[in-house]
Amino acid sequence: MPGNTFGKIFRLTTFGESHGAAIGGVIDGCPSGLKIDEDKIRAALERRKPGQSKITTQRKESDEFEILSGVFDGKALGSPLAFIIRNQDYKPSDYDNLKDVYRPSHADYTYDAKYGIRDYRGGGRSSARETAARVFAGAIAESFLKEAEDGDDKISIRAFVSQVGNIKTEKDYSLLDLTRIESNIVRCPDETVAEKMIQLIEDVRKDGDTVGGVITCVIQNVPVGLGEPVFDKLQADLAKAMMGINAAHGFEYGSGFKGVEMKGSQHNDRFEKDPSGKIITKSNYSGGILGGISNGMDIYFRVAFKPVSTLMKSQQTLDVKGNEVELKGKGRHDSCVVPRAVPIVEAMAAIVLADHVLRNRNTKL
Amino acid sequence: MPGNTFGKIFRLTTFGESHGAAIGGVIDGCPSGLKIDEDKIRAALERRKPGQSKITTQRKESDEFEILSGVFDGKALGSPLAFIIRNQDYKPSDYDNLKDVYRPSHADYTYDAKYGIRDYRGGGRSSARETAARVFAGAIAESFLKEAEDGDDKISIRAFVSQVGNIKTEKDYSLLDLTRIESNIVRCPDETVAEKMIQLIEDVRKDGDTVGGVITCVIQNVPVGLGEPVFDKLQADLAKAMMGINAAHGFEYGSGFKGVEMKGSQHNDRFEKDPSGKIITKSNYSGGILGGISNGMDIYFRVAFKPVSTLMKSQQTLDVKGNEVELKGKGRHDSCVVPRAVPIVEAMAAIVLADHVLRNRNTKL
Amino acid sequence: MPGNTFGKIFRLTTFGESHGAAIGGVIDGCPSGLKIDEDKIRAALERRKPGQSKITTQRKESDEFEILSGVFDGKALGSPLAFIIRNQDYKPSDYDNLKDVYRPSHADYTYDAKYGIRDYRGGGRSSARETAARVFAGAIAESFLKEAEDGDDKISIRAFVSQVGNIKTEKDYSLLDLTRIESNIVRCPDETVAEKMIQLIEDVRKDGDTVGGVITCVIQNVPVGLGEPVFDKLQADLAKAMMGINAAHGFEYGSGFKGVEMKGSQHNDRFEKDPSGKIITKSNYSGGILGGISNGMDIYFRVAFKPVSTLMKSQQTLDVKGNEVELKGKGRHDSCVVPRAVPIVEAMAAIVLADHVLRNRNTKL
Amino acid sequence: MPGNTFGKIFRLTTFGESHGAAIGGVIDGCPSGLKIDEDKIRAALERRKPGQSKITTQRKESDEFEILSGVFDGKALGSPLAFIIRNQDYKPSDYDNLKDVYRPSHADYTYDAKYGIRDYRGGGRSSARETAARVFAGAIAESFLKEAEDGDDKISIRAFVSQVGNIKTEKDYSLLDLTRIESNIVRCPDETVAEKMIQLIEDVRKDGDTVGGVITCVIQNVPVGLGEPVFDKLQADLAKAMMGINAAHGFEYGSGFKGVEMKGSQHNDRFEKDPSGKIITKSNYSGGILGGISNGMDIYFRVAFKPVSTLMKSQQTLDVKGNEVELKGKGRHDSCVVPRAVPIVEAMAAIVLADHVLRNRNTKL
Repeated sequence: MPGNTFGKIFRLTTFGESHGAAIGGVIDGCPSGLKIDEDKIRAALERRKPGQSKITTQRKESDEFEILSGVFDGKALGSPLAFIIRNQDYKPSDYDNLKDVYRPSHADYTYDAKYGIRDYRGGGRSSARETAARVFAGAIAESFLKEAEDGDDKISIRAFVSQVGNIKTEKDYSLLDLTRIESNIVRCPDETVAEKMIQLIEDVRKDGDTVGGVITCVIQNVPVGLGEPVFDKLQADLAKAMMGINAAHGFEYGSGFKGVEMKGSQHNDRFEKDPSGKIITKSNYSGGILGGISNGMDIYFRVAFKPVSTLMKSQQTLDVKGNEVELKGKGRHDSCVVPRAVPIVEAMAAIVLADHVLRNRNTKL
Repeated sequence: MPGNTFGKIFRLTTFGESHGAAIGGVIDGCPSGLKIDEDKIRAALERRKPGQSKITTQRKESDEFEILSGVFDGKALGSPLAFIIRNQDYKPSDYDNLKDVYRPSHADYTYDAKYGIRDYRGGGRSSARETAARVFAGAIAESFLKEAEDGDDKISIRAFVSQVGNIKTEKDYSLLDLTRIESNIVRCPDETVAEKMIQLIEDVRKDGDTVGGVITCVIQNVPVGLGEPVFDKLQADLAKAMMGINAAHGFEYGSGFKGVEMKGSQHNDRFEKDPSGKIITKSNYSGGILGGISNGMDIYFRVAFKPVSTLMKSQQTLDVKGNEVELKGKGRHDSCVVPRAVPIVEAMAAIVLADHVLRNRNTKL
Repeated sequence: MPGNTFGKIFRLTTFGESHGAAIGGVIDGCPSGLKIDEDKIRAALERRKPGQSKITTQRKESDEFEILSGVFDGKALGSPLAFIIRNQDYKPSDYDNLKDVYRPSHADYTYDAKYGIRDYRGGGRSSARETAARVFAGAIAESFLKEAEDGDDKISIRAFVSQVGNIKTEKDYSLLDLTRIESNIVRCPDETVAEKMIQLIEDVRKDGDTVGGVITCVIQNVPVGLGEPVFDKLQADLAKAMMGINAAHGFEYGSGFKGVEMKGSQHNDRFEKDPSGKIITKSNYSGGILGGISNGMDIYFRVAFKPVSTLMKSQQTLDVKGNEVELKGKGRHDSCVVPRAVPIVEAMAAIVLADHVLRNRNTKL
Repeated sequence: MPGNTFGKIFRLTTFGESHGAAIGGVIDGCPSGLKIDEDKIRAALERRKPGQSKITTQRKESDEFEILSGVFDGKALGSPLAFIIRNQDYKPSDYDNLKDVYRPSHADYTYDAKYGIRDYRGGGRSSARETAARVFAGAIAESFLKEAEDGDDKISIRAFVSQVGNIKTEKDYSLLDLTRIESNIVRCPDETVAEKMIQLIEDVRKDGDTVGGVITCVIQNVPVGLGEPVFDKLQADLAKAMMGINAAHGFEYGSGFKGVEMKGSQHNDRFEKDPSGKIITKSNYSGGILGGISNGMDIYFRVAFKPVSTLMKSQQTLDVKGNEVELKGKGRHDSCVVPRAVPIVEAMAAIVLADHVLRNRNTKL
């Protein structure tokens, strides 16, 4: 049973190989009447796009999309919303060097082993290009989250780069100005740290090497009650969403791995009432989720990304027949994926939340 | 849409409140002909059971199960395998202190907010007692994994405690003797460290406090090809499974959060052939998974658990009407959950793998 | 992937072999706060029970149920509602005659072929006893349908026997008094016809033979908007629900098979307004569904049931080794299943509607 | 939760409004290595296409498809196979007459009521144009069924028109030459009857009226063991598939509605061995399915289709404001849908079987 669909009610199915005719997706379960804002979708895709700054790959990819169905007069019909993003034409000869080789830490070998056939012209389904479809769907999910909520305090989802290699911001997210994320090309709102990160990425790139990083995501103004015990706890669905992003190797929310060193008496979040009488907690080590259900406090989590596997250096590896071969670095690739992964993390978070907002409509009589 | 079912083909649905008539589950998709070994199930449940050692809660719970369906002459019929574990009788008065109070960092408040009704006699669905059903199903999933594979090198799933509070083993799993996990009550095969962990748990308990920990899980002899791109990558389903366990706050696999500091040239796992001609990798920072699909190397991951929320100390909190109240510590509870969580981690890993072994039967023509 | 679960949001999973420890089910997705009325469930089960009248099997089965979870203080918690109905004890020797034989038109042969193992003590999963779990869940679904709707005109689901063998009522359901269904043991509100049906069933039974029948079901006061294009049209889900009942061989709704002989100009249902201004249709050949979505008019359909396969006559058949054997009629069985299938048809209809009422909560922004 | 996906393992999701940019679909779960034969797909689409003969609508629609993903070197990659069929351009003014009117027995009213928004330029999702995507997927499902089976006796699925209005063939399918279905434009292999059907359709069309019909489908050389008790019985999934086709009002398999008049002693299919030693049944009133599982005998079923709702006559109806209006017949439409529905019935049957062949791979250890 294949795994190309995410979500239970707000369901995204993606399709497309990186070097086939097109990539795209179908959103089934987008509520009717939702305004579909193509500019907003375009802006989201721009943030993921290659070539957007000096620290991303200079490869140019067209991310122009076409909506094929499900929208009429600018609004969702409640029927499947299908969209495509065409791939550019490639010359077959461009891939002669990849046809017979298993690139280290890439999926060439496992795809061959699993499927017995592989589109060797690029990463196929394992290419990060597939994530453009997620960013598209995330923009729609986010629109839904904004429109579904009444009142002024709309849900907001903001991710930023908190670490690149060994350069990290030591500041808690609450001390950072999250409106400043887009003020630099590495998407870290701690600007002194951002400069160091940019420098590190440039140094690594000059070396033909790559480096990993961490993205922190903060979700604010979450309604109370999202998440489904016991297996579809909100943190479980967020973890699955994040660990399904290419190169993600770790997920933690709230106190995370550091929380294991705390005592329960420190870690427990004391309930209290805010001036308006709303129930809040004094601390928030729980990361806004209790028993798998949102409690209205900020949800925050961190996602670790390994260094990109494609190097501009030559590497020893095996070919499909098992012979040792040298793989030459070639093409234009990211030295660090995290600045471009920020909108992907946000998109997947939006899809998880949109799905749970809809699921929660069925909870009570 | 509720979240009480896990898995796509090998599907576990659990039910039951901690203080209702019974907990239990239904496994739908257990292949026919599988030997169902009740002793093996019983042994698995013993490892999760309260009261098993001086460092777990001294509360006695019966974990005696009854299989209601799906088994005939000791073998699975291919029909739903339903099982129940009865809860003991409680006097209603035992819960008078919990009826109207929101325990800090527990799910009382969020359940009330979500459902408008709550079984206040205990944790209900959010109680760790629900995990007994997972351990039951995990034992069957593990039997399937052993029987489904030909050859001598059967898949093995072994979890152990690698950290309690700030006490941790510094040894990589490959340097530890994983057959020694059960040789001490804290389930850490690094025996000098184990002693310190036990001491720490006892000290914390005397204080009426609690402490968190980390469980490391190692899966060996995994067939190549398990995992489904793009959303149901093997690591994504493992992450969801682990983050759905009570108190889990973090998940990392392979190089995890530390891997972000590495360069690609260090992190990439070079392919090579072992003496038998099988393709392996020299290093294994990928944690046995490439592009979401197992590559046959060891899968290893770590799960962080926060300190238990129930303290034997009094705490300030709110009652259901929003009044400040003092919650007194009472009853018998674990000071550290990780020793008893080891079989739960193993069980969820076994369920994920069994499901993916079955899913993979549909991959090729 | 097994097929023991029905419904997407209001989900029923059933389990249990007819001669194992118990049968039962888990309802996941029952909205919290719903009143669970055990007397109502009991009354529904009584209508399905063997031995209820002279025209049903005189076999006694206990249908006493136990609710294991999901209910607190008489209300649904929103968690899985599990229930069991114990089977009585049987002596193994009772089944010696069934162990090695393939009964004609029963599932013995296909179960053996599919699973390689079979609980030969009875029909196992293919036994009609499994339907008790559906009737249980149907009673809860019906409670939900009544409570979910505001206003006086609550949805009503009423099925009756419209044909037994070649004896049928010629009256349209609208000319029958549907409150009279329970006034006779064959559950046909056309009382002159009912008497003939009863006579036919008795005659057939004396012969050791069996006969088929048709059940008509009428659903009134249906909200407009239930049903999901394109594959989960309301009629498609009703058809699946009905054709999943043992012995069902046909389903038609609205004008059904007879409608094929009509011209479009006769068959089209003209829209008009009723005195209150509500949109209705003058005729209702569409059976209350347009484009897969309920239009508020009566939904009515008919389900054909073949004659029961178990005869009180001897028959020639094969044993498991392929030898010709004579199967002797034995035990107490129904000569006509339709009177007892009436509550099963109603239950499955209620489950379909409850599921679609919940699904429809996610349609609009 | 929307209903645009069919199947559990071999999953088809369709999208597209009849007058939007395109219709299409995504097949997720197509096994890797399957040969994708575009000519075969094209031939299947031709049989469904408008304008193919004098008894179908003379409207021209392009059914040229483009495969976007999932295929490489003519073979399925095992990844989602997405395809689109572009709609032609329409002038908005073409629909002025449909914008505000509820056509009788069409889905305009129920879509408006359900979604609060409607693509009034045509039938939208309720248009029969959507079924082109099913025919596309059916062609691939059929290829899989042929390739998945070893041996000479490949599974075959053949549907034909057995009734138009009150003209029907009285011959059992076993007496007809099913290779002759395509020998006439009404697709009835009983050629004398076929001529009368064609005449009736022409007469009805001259009247500006429409008429219904029945399609019989026969599936031969079915492997034993397909179908999943208890809710996903093979007949239940076939019924759902057929009742989800536009205009379908009835489904019966095996003895169907006529079987209710038979005695069990007549209806029971006696097991016997054929000369090769294979277990068969002497008669086949069970329609090739016992207990929801295929027994290897022919599966045959009949589907009733109501007369087309679009008339070339004027009709009284309501507009969206509830005013009485006259709807004028306009455009080019089918007078009888069944000849073009033959490939749709075959396609849905192929999808059901392909799904169950894959599901059955998970049955046994």
